[in-house]
Amino acid sequence: MAEDNVIFVGEKPFMNYVTAIVMQFTTKNAAEITIKARGKFISRAVDVAEVASKRFLNDQVKVNDIKIDSEEFTNKEGKEVRVSTIEITLSKKQS
Amino acid sequence: MAEDNVIFVGEKPFMNYVTAIVMQFTTKNAAEITIKARGKFISRAVDVAEVASKRFLNDQVKVNDIKIDSEEFTNKEGKEVRVSTIEITLSKKQS
Repeated sequence: MAEDNVIFVGEKPFMNYVTAIVMQFTTKNAAEITIKARGKFISRAVDVAEVASKRFLNDQVKVNDIKIDSEEFTNKEGKEVRVSTIEITLSKKQS
Repeated sequence: MAEDNVIFVGEKPFMNYVTAIVMQFTTKNAAEITIKARGKFISRAVDVAEVASKRFLNDQVKVNDIKIDSEEFTNKEGKEVRVSTIEITLSKKQS
């Protein structure tokens, strides 16, 4: 189930996301997790990736890939808006 | 001068950064520009990269590399704090 390995970062408490990632790698033995965020939550997604990979899973997990992109959509006022997105992939290090 | 090709994104008006990048690529003929930001300005750095590369320099410039990292320092209260950083490299496309 690929979707199990995707964490969307939003406005929940910061440590919820870090804990979810640590659990997936440790108890569920995931090989790879993708952290996704949009707009103002991008900074937070980077914080989550850094804290999970360096403070909690150091020597076990590394940042493997980072992609940024834009999504365009029509807002409630009927105006075209653009929002940036990020995808950060953490992978188990080969031991 | 490598430093000429580095843009630090902070709290100035958004378009200042975009304009600076567009100018470097067009009038100064830069081959590569690195956008750097820390903490809450990371989301903004991604917006700047997306708007510069897709809206203004589409077909000319692409996101070539993205790195995230952490910096640790001691704040005014003498406490160790961690801040995330990002570096986004935009490069001229080969034509």
